[in-house]
Amino acid sequence: MKIAVIGAGSTYTPELINGFIERMTVLPLTELWLMDINPGRLDVVGGFARRMVLAKGSPFAVHLTLNQAEAITGASYVITQLRVGGLQARREDEYLGRRHGLVGQETTGIGGMGKALRTIPVVLKIAEDIQRLAPGAVLLNFTNPSGLVTEAVNRYVPGVTTVGVCNGPFGMKMGFLNFLKSHGRFDGDFDAVEADILGINHLSWCRGLNYHGRELWDDYLELYLQQESGAQGWDRRMVEVTRMIPSGYLGYFYATAQKVADQQKWPPSRAETVMEVEAELLRQYAEPDRIEPPPGLMKRGGAFYSTVATQIINSHFNNLGEIHIANIVHRGAVAPWPADWVLEMPCRIDRGGFHPQVSAPLPPVCFGLLAAVKMYELLTVDAAIHGDRKAAYEAMLVNPLGPQMRDVQPVLDDLLETHRAYLPQFWS
Amino acid sequence: MKIAVIGAGSTYTPELINGFIERMTVLPLTELWLMDINPGRLDVVGGFARRMVLAKGSPFAVHLTLNQAEAITGASYVITQLRVGGLQARREDEYLGRRHGLVGQETTGIGGMGKALRTIPVVLKIAEDIQRLAPGAVLLNFTNPSGLVTEAVNRYVPGVTTVGVCNGPFGMKMGFLNFLKSHGRFDGDFDAVEADILGINHLSWCRGLNYHGRELWDDYLELYLQQESGAQGWDRRMVEVTRMIPSGYLGYFYATAQKVADQQKWPPSRAETVMEVEAELLRQYAEPDRIEPPPGLMKRGGAFYSTVATQIINSHFNNLGEIHIANIVHRGAVAPWPADWVLEMPCRIDRGGFHPQVSAPLPPVCFGLLAAVKMYELLTVDAAIHGDRKAAYEAMLVNPLGPQMRDVQPVLDDLLETHRAYLPQFWS
Amino acid sequence: MKIAVIGAGSTYTPELINGFIERMTVLPLTELWLMDINPGRLDVVGGFARRMVLAKGSPFAVHLTLNQAEAITGASYVITQLRVGGLQARREDEYLGRRHGLVGQETTGIGGMGKALRTIPVVLKIAEDIQRLAPGAVLLNFTNPSGLVTEAVNRYVPGVTTVGVCNGPFGMKMGFLNFLKSHGRFDGDFDAVEADILGINHLSWCRGLNYHGRELWDDYLELYLQQESGAQGWDRRMVEVTRMIPSGYLGYFYATAQKVADQQKWPPSRAETVMEVEAELLRQYAEPDRIEPPPGLMKRGGAFYSTVATQIINSHFNNLGEIHIANIVHRGAVAPWPADWVLEMPCRIDRGGFHPQVSAPLPPVCFGLLAAVKMYELLTVDAAIHGDRKAAYEAMLVNPLGPQMRDVQPVLDDLLETHRAYLPQFWS
Amino acid sequence: MKIAVIGAGSTYTPELINGFIERMTVLPLTELWLMDINPGRLDVVGGFARRMVLAKGSPFAVHLTLNQAEAITGASYVITQLRVGGLQARREDEYLGRRHGLVGQETTGIGGMGKALRTIPVVLKIAEDIQRLAPGAVLLNFTNPSGLVTEAVNRYVPGVTTVGVCNGPFGMKMGFLNFLKSHGRFDGDFDAVEADILGINHLSWCRGLNYHGRELWDDYLELYLQQESGAQGWDRRMVEVTRMIPSGYLGYFYATAQKVADQQKWPPSRAETVMEVEAELLRQYAEPDRIEPPPGLMKRGGAFYSTVATQIINSHFNNLGEIHIANIVHRGAVAPWPADWVLEMPCRIDRGGFHPQVSAPLPPVCFGLLAAVKMYELLTVDAAIHGDRKAAYEAMLVNPLGPQMRDVQPVLDDLLETHRAYLPQFWS
Repeated sequence: MKIAVIGAGSTYTPELINGFIERMTVLPLTELWLMDINPGRLDVVGGFARRMVLAKGSPFAVHLTLNQAEAITGASYVITQLRVGGLQARREDEYLGRRHGLVGQETTGIGGMGKALRTIPVVLKIAEDIQRLAPGAVLLNFTNPSGLVTEAVNRYVPGVTTVGVCNGPFGMKMGFLNFLKSHGRFDGDFDAVEADILGINHLSWCRGLNYHGRELWDDYLELYLQQESGAQGWDRRMVEVTRMIPSGYLGYFYATAQKVADQQKWPPSRAETVMEVEAELLRQYAEPDRIEPPPGLMKRGGAFYSTVATQIINSHFNNLGEIHIANIVHRGAVAPWPADWVLEMPCRIDRGGFHPQVSAPLPPVCFGLLAAVKMYELLTVDAAIHGDRKAAYEAMLVNPLGPQMRDVQPVLDDLLETHRAYLPQFWS
Repeated sequence: MKIAVIGAGSTYTPELINGFIERMTVLPLTELWLMDINPGRLDVVGGFARRMVLAKGSPFAVHLTLNQAEAITGASYVITQLRVGGLQARREDEYLGRRHGLVGQETTGIGGMGKALRTIPVVLKIAEDIQRLAPGAVLLNFTNPSGLVTEAVNRYVPGVTTVGVCNGPFGMKMGFLNFLKSHGRFDGDFDAVEADILGINHLSWCRGLNYHGRELWDDYLELYLQQESGAQGWDRRMVEVTRMIPSGYLGYFYATAQKVADQQKWPPSRAETVMEVEAELLRQYAEPDRIEPPPGLMKRGGAFYSTVATQIINSHFNNLGEIHIANIVHRGAVAPWPADWVLEMPCRIDRGGFHPQVSAPLPPVCFGLLAAVKMYELLTVDAAIHGDRKAAYEAMLVNPLGPQMRDVQPVLDDLLETHRAYLPQFWS
Repeated sequence: MKIAVIGAGSTYTPELINGFIERMTVLPLTELWLMDINPGRLDVVGGFARRMVLAKGSPFAVHLTLNQAEAITGASYVITQLRVGGLQARREDEYLGRRHGLVGQETTGIGGMGKALRTIPVVLKIAEDIQRLAPGAVLLNFTNPSGLVTEAVNRYVPGVTTVGVCNGPFGMKMGFLNFLKSHGRFDGDFDAVEADILGINHLSWCRGLNYHGRELWDDYLELYLQQESGAQGWDRRMVEVTRMIPSGYLGYFYATAQKVADQQKWPPSRAETVMEVEAELLRQYAEPDRIEPPPGLMKRGGAFYSTVATQIINSHFNNLGEIHIANIVHRGAVAPWPADWVLEMPCRIDRGGFHPQVSAPLPPVCFGLLAAVKMYELLTVDAAIHGDRKAAYEAMLVNPLGPQMRDVQPVLDDLLETHRAYLPQFWS
Repeated sequence: MKIAVIGAGSTYTPELINGFIERMTVLPLTELWLMDINPGRLDVVGGFARRMVLAKGSPFAVHLTLNQAEAITGASYVITQLRVGGLQARREDEYLGRRHGLVGQETTGIGGMGKALRTIPVVLKIAEDIQRLAPGAVLLNFTNPSGLVTEAVNRYVPGVTTVGVCNGPFGMKMGFLNFLKSHGRFDGDFDAVEADILGINHLSWCRGLNYHGRELWDDYLELYLQQESGAQGWDRRMVEVTRMIPSGYLGYFYATAQKVADQQKWPPSRAETVMEVEAELLRQYAEPDRIEPPPGLMKRGGAFYSTVATQIINSHFNNLGEIHIANIVHRGAVAPWPADWVLEMPCRIDRGGFHPQVSAPLPPVCFGLLAAVKMYELLTVDAAIHGDRKAAYEAMLVNPLGPQMRDVQPVLDDLLETHRAYLPQFWS
């Protein structure tokens, strides 16, 4: 069984390697292909990956390549974790927002839009290569904005099974369970708990924790509301009223002014911080004797990234029928919503694919925001694929974190100019 | 045929009287009942109304009453134009917004929410009286927020035919046609033109002007885009991209910062201006020899109010089958949207009722905002009827013009306290 | 204004000519093009048509042609009334049913399927010619099975405005009103009555008669149920329970055994009767002095055919906004049914097109049968267009008047063989 | 854990006892309550059941009762296998059909309708008892017509989790796999295969057999079509075209004439045969030394009944998340169909309930028939609950196996008279 990782020069890769090593007993992985367009990064990260695997007795082969087609050919799973334009482009997204008085962030607002416009054509090309060179392979897209990219691939390359993955929902569940556990209210198997999370990626809500048919959520909310200060920055009244906990990224929508004010403290922005972390990580990865990831990897973010990736592959490959949260076309499972939307939701994963689980829709208090962002997503998909400046204008106008009407065109012009090198579809 | 006007102490009433007088040849009106809870206003406005009708040879009787049931009993049409709390409450709505850094406006944002919470129970009571005392009568609701109130009545008193009316769409059409005419591009019968307007009240878009099968819209947009400065404050690029013109109230959403900044110039706010206009109008109405509305009535706003009301009654009573824009349950006519939403849209009006005309849905750039506001509306309906503070919290949170999360509860508390006298459902 | 009639050798044509002559004051028809592939028929019928028009002072020109493209080029309306294979093929449809113990009928059951398979490719070709040679023209399809053919054209040539027309619904309305009138229960203007008819062509139900907002249906049903014998062969209990009157063709579904038994009396079948009628009509049409249709035309069936055609063209051309029953894509107007189905239903007709009127769906007692027949229709469309024998098998299996499972293939083989000359798509 | 069996005097009960004994290691059953209204039957069957359990060391207690409330109180699962009117009423259903020239059968056609009308009020009463006396318990309804009864309970007692169960789909799967195995084409674990079966009970189709992500269906169809004679009586061309195998009961729809002809050979009808089988079984059950079910039980039909019941309880109680075929409200899982229909379909069963799995809808060739039968079901539910003779008329008219229009009322009168003793709702 062959797995290909596109964008393997990422500093996340060692964590992924660890994940595969840990699952060797259940996953008959024989070849892991690490592909990147940056030879230097590939050399450092790939070299370290090889030493890690060698140290464990080489349970599988690690191939490094600059050739995407070679990496994909015959693969069973293709993992995308690339970053078009690297952290420098992310930094540009952040400062683009800041200089226009808007949220400057990698996955939401106009920064997320910039990243989507850069990324979608690249991932589409990967999906087309899969269709040609590895028919039947599953595409696990980790590249942000993960849901939006998945929406694009599902619409334009429907022949490839594509699932958008994010460590966020898993992290939410772990946080809730650790909190319950620390208060002596839960002592069971974390893996047996199903979180009832629904929405779109980075815009989802948790409203249940099911443990063998027992609902833990009321306990959780009771404890949550007893806390002195609103944890995670949520307004306690909001949690009391809605009885849901949002994804942390909802903070950009619910506390926009605060987020924009915080940006005045930059540098360092998040990209700038990560750049420093990465430089140090790459230095450590390059150490010729290193065979274990350095402790500093935790600072990189992306906790559980490897867990989520390997869990999903395991449940799929071994036909386990486990329920995990992922981004998929819901196909009517959330009955009143358009059946072709990609949602972040519980799905049952077996060899037959990723089966959306029928779920009650989110209540109006969530749907209003979700609908606005989904419209932004659909318009961004069209803009990204066709280089359609009108669709881009509309996407930015309808985005709740976008600029006021009179600023839409200037901000869009700035975005397209800033990332011109990575947006050929708009400049041909 | 009997028509009842609830809230007849309004300074708009004389315009309505004129409208009925002009239509005497087609509408066999015999009794017009003017009802208000304010005896002083009723005396002044009603007295003037009687003189107007007398001067025309008393084609119909004018009755004044403080008794709602008496006014409604046996009526064929009931027109609601009441204002709970009067202009003073409107002024409070405006300053409520201003003091929280939000839009302070009568029909949108938190001001509109305050007005809806005060008004819905009162109009519901009228609808129940109609059911009991004038079964089969049509309720024409002009009371703002007109669409939201209509949404509430249709959900809670479905047995009464209720239509939400607003002079806005008619005014848009007249504006477009006058513009075309002044440029020599249209010389036909204004009444024969059907405007393709869709959305929710004060949140609708025009995208077509059909004159006997000929589409005038491309001409209009071409002229519009040639203008030196963006008319009506719209961004020209927005019009060019979307090829639609929004209702003027969309400015509160698309240019929020500007609107909030403009509020710093108060007083006078709009309510304060209208108070002065009204004082002068009432003084003039009270002149014992006056039998014609004073020219100052135009300053009051509400142009075409009388035209719209009488056109609709005429098309209904005389089974004309004319197409007008009104707020009705669309019943699937905008296919992918929930069939129970009240929309502002073209409807065919005949004796059989108000028939929604099948229309293509608005594009994503509009739907995102519309969905958010519709969710706010649905939550506000529940809050208003049940005095449900949680629903009110959620309505304010999902409203795109509402406060940030941490301010929702304080702003809501302020709203409920400010209007306490008119919100018994929240304070029992 | 130019109108083209395809299949103008039909004996119906003189009635149509009369209709246009009567509407000359409102329809500025200048050229009427009569096209047929049969020169002999065209000569006789077309010659008579010319004499009719000449006798009225030649208000419009009549052109005869064997060239479809020439007829269509530049037309505003194209009327299809052709019959692929002529009455001989209809006779084959009838005896095909009879010899397999099934209903043998022109528009329902396997006979209707045979006719649809022969006709759809021909009308599709006409629609394509319209798209090319008369863009913007309206296609009025009278060719049976009218609804099914319209379903096909709307799916495969969506760029042409196509409406399926039938004299049946108009005839039903006239029958009901004459019955009411003869009992002294109605004395108004027949044209002002809107019949609430819904379903698919030859499978529709009437459930209302609206006259200026007054419902005449309860009166009608009361009278109907007082009659000694069930009129039109309907079971009185059925009418009492459902409070609807079905299209006469429902008799083939509700009294199948009787219909099949009646076939034993053949000859003459209906086709054979019509052949005799037509021979006599053509003899009369050929009389060199004849300038008026012979009285025998009434025996031909198709009463009101001309009325319906000219009413629809008049309402469209003159932007009248009248409500008529026609076969159109309902676009969600019958909310819970798939929005892309063609239905026979009320539509508002103006220059802008054919606007479906929002209608409550038929109750379950009707929907069960309607759904089965609609599935047969959709499969027949696919079979006809692609020459798909599997789709044809499925269409026949799901048709409630089709044969039992084990006979489907033999009956289908017989059908395809019988009409081989007219079904090239299945035999290439 | 307590399980109650209502209608426990059934000869099926010993098979169920065996099932519970076999699952003792996984199901902590402590009390099994056997309830029946017939003391004689309960004595014989219950006595035998007690000896069976005693012989295994009394792993759980067996209680016999005539009191339904006592049986249900505190139960975790309630199994309904009652038969209102016993086999004598079933015999009446059969001969009712025969004497009107219609299919006479227990679950389809007018016989099934008679059984539904008798049964629905009784099972509704059980569901209400569960709501009151065993809140949270699951109702497993085996009583035929199983899907229709489940449709009724879900609509009128939505607070109880009700699942309609049938051994049919499991039997289909076993048949297919045994066939594959006997031809050397499958050698795996039968339990690991998921059959893709969809429809309504006794009107469903199989279109897939998924074994760990491998599709066995193409193999099965290939073998099926190689057979000399059409197995199970299906037309080979039908299977070749549709690539599905229907439930055996579809034979009543696809080969109606043959089924009706076969009825001429009666007696014995199926009920009469079963009466004889049952008399012998009861004689054997009564043998004081008997502790094992007699071999003749197999003749009774209902193979796998016990397997299906215990599998479902096991997956639910032990939160296994297994996929089984059952009758549940699909809640949008079959996207274009009304979300409130009960369907026979794959559901994932865990402590949280019965989760419908998103499935592609059946193709048109199936939907036409399914829609007609579902309409019959909905009307029958209303008729059964309200004793509504009009709904009953409509149900019979829309049923594809019902009589022709003119016979509907006579046949309905006969049905209501024949079963008068068991249809108090129609005779009060």
